[in-house]
Amino acid sequence: MQDALLALTRYWTERGCVVVQPYNTEVGAGTLNPATVLRVLGPEPWRVSYVEPSVRPDDARYGENPNRLQTHTQFQVILKPDPGNPQELYLGSLEALGIDVRAHDVRFVEDNWASPALGAWGLGWEVWLDGLEITQFTYFQQAGGMSLDPVSVEITYGIERIMMALQGVGHFKDIAYAPGISYGEAFGQAEYEMSRYYLDDADVEANKRLFEEYASEARRMLDARLPVPAHNYVLKCSHAFNVLDARGAISTTERARAFGRMRGLAREVAQLWAARREELGHPLGLAEAPAAATLPAEFAEVEGPSTLLFEIGTEELPPAEVTRTVEAVGKAVADKLGATRLAHGPVEVHGTPRRIVVLVPDVAPREPDAEKTVRGPRVSAGFDADGNPTKAVQGFARGQGVDVTALGRVTENGVEHVALVRTDPGRGAVRVLSGLLAEVVSELRAEKNMKWNDPKLSFTRPIRWLLALLGTTPVPVAVSSLAAEPRTRVHRTAAEPVVEVSTADGYLEFLAGHGIDASAERRRDAIVARAEELAASAGGVVDSAGVLDEVTNLVERPTPILGSFEERYLELPAQILTTVMRKHQRYLPVRARDGSLLPHFVAVANGDVDADLVRAGNEAVLRARYEDAAFFWRADLRTPLEDMKAGLEKLTFADRLGSMADRAGRIAALARRLADEVGAADETLARAGELAKFDLGSQMVIELSSLAGVMAREYAERAGETPEVAQALYEMELPRSAGDALPTSTPGALLSLADRFDLLAGLFGIGANPTGSSDPFGLRRAALGAVSVLRAFPDLKAITLTKALALAAQEVEAQQLEASALAIPATALDAAREFAVRRYEQQLLDAGHDHRFVNAVLPLADAPAVADATLAELTALAGDGGFAALVAALQRVRRIVPADTVGEYDPQVLVEPAEVALHKALADVPTGVTGLAAFASAATGLTGPVNTFFDEVLVMAEDADVRRARLGLLAAIRDLAAPVLDWQALGTALG
Amino acid sequence: MQDALLALTRYWTERGCVVVQPYNTEVGAGTLNPATVLRVLGPEPWRVSYVEPSVRPDDARYGENPNRLQTHTQFQVILKPDPGNPQELYLGSLEALGIDVRAHDVRFVEDNWASPALGAWGLGWEVWLDGLEITQFTYFQQAGGMSLDPVSVEITYGIERIMMALQGVGHFKDIAYAPGISYGEAFGQAEYEMSRYYLDDADVEANKRLFEEYASEARRMLDARLPVPAHNYVLKCSHAFNVLDARGAISTTERARAFGRMRGLAREVAQLWAARREELGHPLGLAEAPAAATLPAEFAEVEGPSTLLFEIGTEELPPAEVTRTVEAVGKAVADKLGATRLAHGPVEVHGTPRRIVVLVPDVAPREPDAEKTVRGPRVSAGFDADGNPTKAVQGFARGQGVDVTALGRVTENGVEHVALVRTDPGRGAVRVLSGLLAEVVSELRAEKNMKWNDPKLSFTRPIRWLLALLGTTPVPVAVSSLAAEPRTRVHRTAAEPVVEVSTADGYLEFLAGHGIDASAERRRDAIVARAEELAASAGGVVDSAGVLDEVTNLVERPTPILGSFEERYLELPAQILTTVMRKHQRYLPVRARDGSLLPHFVAVANGDVDADLVRAGNEAVLRARYEDAAFFWRADLRTPLEDMKAGLEKLTFADRLGSMADRAGRIAALARRLADEVGAADETLARAGELAKFDLGSQMVIELSSLAGVMAREYAERAGETPEVAQALYEMELPRSAGDALPTSTPGALLSLADRFDLLAGLFGIGANPTGSSDPFGLRRAALGAVSVLRAFPDLKAITLTKALALAAQEVEAQQLEASALAIPATALDAAREFAVRRYEQQLLDAGHDHRFVNAVLPLADAPAVADATLAELTALAGDGGFAALVAALQRVRRIVPADTVGEYDPQVLVEPAEVALHKALADVPTGVTGLAAFASAATGLTGPVNTFFDEVLVMAEDADVRRARLGLLAAIRDLAAPVLDWQALGTALG
Repeated sequence: MQDALLALTRYWTERGCVVVQPYNTEVGAGTLNPATVLRVLGPEPWRVSYVEPSVRPDDARYGENPNRLQTHTQFQVILKPDPGNPQELYLGSLEALGIDVRAHDVRFVEDNWASPALGAWGLGWEVWLDGLEITQFTYFQQAGGMSLDPVSVEITYGIERIMMALQGVGHFKDIAYAPGISYGEAFGQAEYEMSRYYLDDADVEANKRLFEEYASEARRMLDARLPVPAHNYVLKCSHAFNVLDARGAISTTERARAFGRMRGLAREVAQLWAARREELGHPLGLAEAPAAATLPAEFAEVEGPSTLLFEIGTEELPPAEVTRTVEAVGKAVADKLGATRLAHGPVEVHGTPRRIVVLVPDVAPREPDAEKTVRGPRVSAGFDADGNPTKAVQGFARGQGVDVTALGRVTENGVEHVALVRTDPGRGAVRVLSGLLAEVVSELRAEKNMKWNDPKLSFTRPIRWLLALLGTTPVPVAVSSLAAEPRTRVHRTAAEPVVEVSTADGYLEFLAGHGIDASAERRRDAIVARAEELAASAGGVVDSAGVLDEVTNLVERPTPILGSFEERYLELPAQILTTVMRKHQRYLPVRARDGSLLPHFVAVANGDVDADLVRAGNEAVLRARYEDAAFFWRADLRTPLEDMKAGLEKLTFADRLGSMADRAGRIAALARRLADEVGAADETLARAGELAKFDLGSQMVIELSSLAGVMAREYAERAGETPEVAQALYEMELPRSAGDALPTSTPGALLSLADRFDLLAGLFGIGANPTGSSDPFGLRRAALGAVSVLRAFPDLKAITLTKALALAAQEVEAQQLEASALAIPATALDAAREFAVRRYEQQLLDAGHDHRFVNAVLPLADAPAVADATLAELTALAGDGGFAALVAALQRVRRIVPADTVGEYDPQVLVEPAEVALHKALADVPTGVTGLAAFASAATGLTGPVNTFFDEVLVMAEDADVRRARLGLLAAIRDLAAPVLDWQALGTALG
Repeated sequence: MQDALLALTRYWTERGCVVVQPYNTEVGAGTLNPATVLRVLGPEPWRVSYVEPSVRPDDARYGENPNRLQTHTQFQVILKPDPGNPQELYLGSLEALGIDVRAHDVRFVEDNWASPALGAWGLGWEVWLDGLEITQFTYFQQAGGMSLDPVSVEITYGIERIMMALQGVGHFKDIAYAPGISYGEAFGQAEYEMSRYYLDDADVEANKRLFEEYASEARRMLDARLPVPAHNYVLKCSHAFNVLDARGAISTTERARAFGRMRGLAREVAQLWAARREELGHPLGLAEAPAAATLPAEFAEVEGPSTLLFEIGTEELPPAEVTRTVEAVGKAVADKLGATRLAHGPVEVHGTPRRIVVLVPDVAPREPDAEKTVRGPRVSAGFDADGNPTKAVQGFARGQGVDVTALGRVTENGVEHVALVRTDPGRGAVRVLSGLLAEVVSELRAEKNMKWNDPKLSFTRPIRWLLALLGTTPVPVAVSSLAAEPRTRVHRTAAEPVVEVSTADGYLEFLAGHGIDASAERRRDAIVARAEELAASAGGVVDSAGVLDEVTNLVERPTPILGSFEERYLELPAQILTTVMRKHQRYLPVRARDGSLLPHFVAVANGDVDADLVRAGNEAVLRARYEDAAFFWRADLRTPLEDMKAGLEKLTFADRLGSMADRAGRIAALARRLADEVGAADETLARAGELAKFDLGSQMVIELSSLAGVMAREYAERAGETPEVAQALYEMELPRSAGDALPTSTPGALLSLADRFDLLAGLFGIGANPTGSSDPFGLRRAALGAVSVLRAFPDLKAITLTKALALAAQEVEAQQLEASALAIPATALDAAREFAVRRYEQQLLDAGHDHRFVNAVLPLADAPAVADATLAELTALAGDGGFAALVAALQRVRRIVPADTVGEYDPQVLVEPAEVALHKALADVPTGVTGLAAFASAATGLTGPVNTFFDEVLVMAEDADVRRARLGLLAAIRDLAAPVLDWQALGTALG
């Protein structure tokens, strides 16, 4: 292992990195060493590498857990500015470690990093080696609340994990640390003893006092304008806090206060450091940005219609962004081409993690010329009696730069004008495309965007190259520092990673020849086909749910590989196993025909790899993860549910909304009150409420949070709770995402609703409404979930959104977590309700309902089940002629009656037969009907009389009393129909 | 610089060292990293190397001082057990750093290390590179109060110093740290800011509280039996203490208490660690000791007389031990040879730092046979009447294993016995020497002894080889793990560092041929001759005072090199310059004929070196040291004397005796009281007393403690004190060693006495008497100094040892430093007085005085000047016949008078003429004479009457009254002479 550290140090030193020493006070990560967290600030260049033993008291396990240590070894690299090829440099470092990157499956898997406590974030990846996360690779965007310019590349290697993989050992203690000495022999005692300190023996009060001392020294050093000692004390603060946290000694309020304090200090340190460096005149100089690319003065144009090839080369895009970018680029190219006069075939776009490929066949070599008429003075004022041009015409001609004789005439709106007809010559296709494609690139945006070494561009990951050819002719494209060239980059591990491209035609085949499938569809099909083959060879079928789209966009050419794990792990609940496979490893589980899991999986590697090596690596990773899971499983089974639940006290939920324990208490109370609304309170609900969310305190869920609910059910059952209670605890977490299963039991549904309404009322109540891009608490999902449950349980329709939110707000207010109680304003609840209704509307639209029908039933959405029913009836009645006639009649009524007309009238005033008949028909409609279908049936008798009325009666009679009565009659009909649905919104949908 | 760290890491890794990371809490030295201080304990093997940024708040200088940093970089190596060749391994590491050890002068200069706070010590060297200390090399003997077995080799490189030397830069900030980045650019800001924190801005109360928190966590962890976290907190304690110390916030009592606490904790940590490792079954196994050497079954003997060559090869001995060992080995070999029957020539012994060479010519090939008579029964009982042997004789013959016929006869004390004359055959010389030489080695002892990898030997430094030849025949010698071989080791940098030795004859020439002068005398002469040449070439003469002996024994072949320094440094007081040259660099200053310093020096390198390179290196070192001194000089000149004096509060003197400020106060008070005794109080003494020892608070003396006094005079004069005060302050420190100058002024003498009597009374008072080998406070020197001053100032003879010690004790007791006053027992003062008298006695003997004369005057030594005078008179009178007769007469008197006889008598009883005459002669001796000469003159009239009295009178008269009177008369004469000197001790010295 020490050789590995030396090899990395040597490698990065040779690439211009300064070596510094680990920091001499405890840090939780290499990032916190001032060589990173301070040096990334400001404009000075900096390249550094160092080892950092990273202390995480919370990870202390007495040295027993095979993968978890209170002190693990990071190797940290900072490249500032981004050198333009950091991934390639990184791969070189793996080779320096003796890893054959051609044989192994090395992948860059989306993983973004944020430390709110440091006011820091960045975008990047986890790097996988045969499925094992070995490195965190981040483009550092912000630190200490300050945007970084230039951006730094941060590469953090997890050394123990890399060593375990390279040495093929299953426990960190078995790593060969040095010749003849294992990691355990060298550090085992310290690991045990420091675990004892952090978990059991640290004095809580002493560490609290230390925290205070450190914080106040940090404060004093900031005031003295000394960022280095100030940072030192912020680190000590943070460590003291971590010790207290590991000891389980941090209450909700303390946690919030401590975080706030450390965050504030860290930001001030960063700002002070930046200011001090400026005062010192930036001793290391200023980093230089790459120069802007330029266009040639002349463009070589093409002769005949040609295929356009445009490739935007990137570092690994997040899978979802591949799809999104393919669509966005396709639309942008099509729109922009449409705005030119360039003839072209259909725009075709493909995407992989590393490239967006645009192909447009039959692009005309030039735009056709166009004629353009410039209107001058009226002819009547243009010539004098002798027919000579007046000064006005002369001036016009001069202004246009032509002789008067070149002018013609044009007639506009019947008036004849002097005019000049100009020819607008068509531009060459290359020139047109040059500008157009540059715009496409500079306008690229993703959900989350970042900066890299380019001075102007911004995208989800760095754009590293552009390839543009029209047929065989290069299209010069210059965007900020990027210039298109007639070459592309294929697999980084290829013998020649950069290849020349001579022609646009057949580019997909060209790529395929280099081991790249540009088409996501082809990749997906290939995965499915091969995975099925592999699964069949193991006697099963592949279960591709959930991860297929992601996997498709994680590779440029999929290489499915069948792996296995030990059968004994099948004793664990299947959801644990599949969660690990899918969520952590992006493997496709293999099932028997009866749906039960088989001890196999399909991993999808990228391109050509040594399948046996990659299989073995992936199997080892899965084994370690399952071993971990089994460890948690056994530990949790030994822990009483109440003990796990007590752990919720330590989990902060949100500012002013207390801990997760507080939230669980509110959910239980709210579920009871909702149950009371519908008379559904029972013992199951009461007991499940008591246990609500207890599994968040289990080791399994702390590790695998997506198993919340699943583990609750498993552990509750094994702890002797009734199956109903266990099921209710599980269902409380449903639905976990759009399309997920819904509760099936009433207690489960009530808890699920309580969970979601507590979230909505609480967070809207503290003003934490989701914004366009930010929804950290998942309120969209919560609202959708609540609506889905309400839709699924029509029996609970008395629980309206309004009611539920009001009760939830009462529970929040009742909890009195702080001295001055939280008072949730009515407007906040209105906003929450509206937010939920909008989610419901979207659900309906997504389900393909006519938007007018949807709008028609939205007024009923406070009880979505009611709106659902109405919508169903509406849809059912849509083909019914009688109903259509009724609607048409009602719409006639609605159109003629002013909005302010009251639906009352004196029947005595009505005398015309048609109006009397309508009055009678109205009187015959039964009262008390609810629902659209019932109404339609009840009101069907109105259709004829309404139509007759309009045929025979003039509503606007001259006699005011008569007029008032007729309008009153019609208004009464309108009012009768009004509660049923929104007729206005329905419009002529049935007509 | 980072390349250097990597190169060292790689080098030691390849030699089996584990690499660990710097510790993640502040440590003052690499030793404190648990990878050293804990791992050296116990029997487990351990080899480790690591970088350690070592934090020393006290060394903070805002980054301004060129050589001093609050955080400097150590590279630390531990080899456990001692691999047997650690110096050679170390030299290899220098080569790995790119240092050509053949061209440079690399030396191992005695330097021992002890950290009482850690209960740790070791013996070893500073390693010098062209005069620059670059490494501390220690055989770790004890840690945490526990003796280490096996011993560890600790090698600590000072990286910044090495880099400055290799890169030839004068300020640490200018070190090229990495390509394009200087040390200052990388770490300058941190150096400045952390200096600010340590020196100015650290909150004192906060750090005191931190100290307490850390100490109590350490205590708790010890109680929990967790040595690792306990050690962690001891380190934090220590750092907090260092911060407080740098802030000047530690009072004497606090310091003592803090040290005591940390020491106690550190020892407990060490013991607990060792115990825990044992409980864990010593996970790293047990270190193996080298096997014992064996002797061959047969010894090849020599034919004729041959020369014995015996060489004991060592690692670099301390210079003083070279001389001492040469003497000891010479005596041992001579004594042991003397106890054999082996004829041999004179024993000749030579020594260098690396070898003790014994040469004995003409060693006989064998011992001669010897006859040995075994006495049997008396002849009278041995034969029966028939002349046949009795059973007794038969039994005797049987017991001796011979036939009765082989028996002879021997006469003893006139009695004839049966006897057997046996021949004791002489042993071969090789066999005799084999055992004898082994004994010499195993009995080697030095003042301070240590262990290394040998399981049994103990000496001042490791013994690494033995060479023993008798003529050309190898003498097998086996001592513990060492076996003599017919080869020696020459310079480590030689092409062949190990060479075969075929014959003992001409060995010194053989060595000389390999560049080694075994004779210290020759080396010394060579140094002087060459240094004089070099000095002459620079127009001066060499000043070899003080360092010549040491330098002679620091090299195996001296290569004097002339160096120079900038003339501007000559503005500094000459003593500063010479102190630096001699004490720190072992250079010989060069002076002009008038005694003033020239800007040159002579350095003495070892063996063949690149003189220009070595000169340049030494010059750079001296420049840096002078630059430092100039920095202190200027800083001190800006500081008022009172401010320096205030700094004494921070310097602990001794437990229960307060700070140096307390001691200075006592000295001033005691000097006043001594002055009062002799009526010598004046303003000079008063003012000098106020300032006493102020220069201990100057930066110069803190750095160069041997300049105490010298700097006091310099600074006092420049601060406007009178020349007399300045001189008195200087003289207070005199004499600094045996043979040093003495005070010349009375105030100076009084202060000097006060200083020394305070030391003696105080330390004997607290029971810190010096023991055989240990005299940490220099009490021997103090006693010698006090006696010397008293001898030099006869006017002060009223100040007796008894008086001065009593007054000093009163001052100590009066100071009341602690709640319960220190009470100094009379026995302690008696012991101190006796200790001083013994020093005086030794002085006189060393000066060549007849020991009987010395003993004769010792009773007067309470006032050494009085004793001196008497001794002088005695010596002068020694040739005087009259005096001899007087003494003879007095001795006759003393012999006959019983000790308990009172010197009184009734003259009326005396009747014989001779006794009456004697009575009259006695009465004629004038009373009130003092001094021996006066007495001799006054009493000369007694000689004749005494002799006549004895001739004519029988003292032991039968009449009791007469007898009593005669004895009384003689006793009165005895008593008259008694106070003059110790006649008993004088004995017959004049006879």
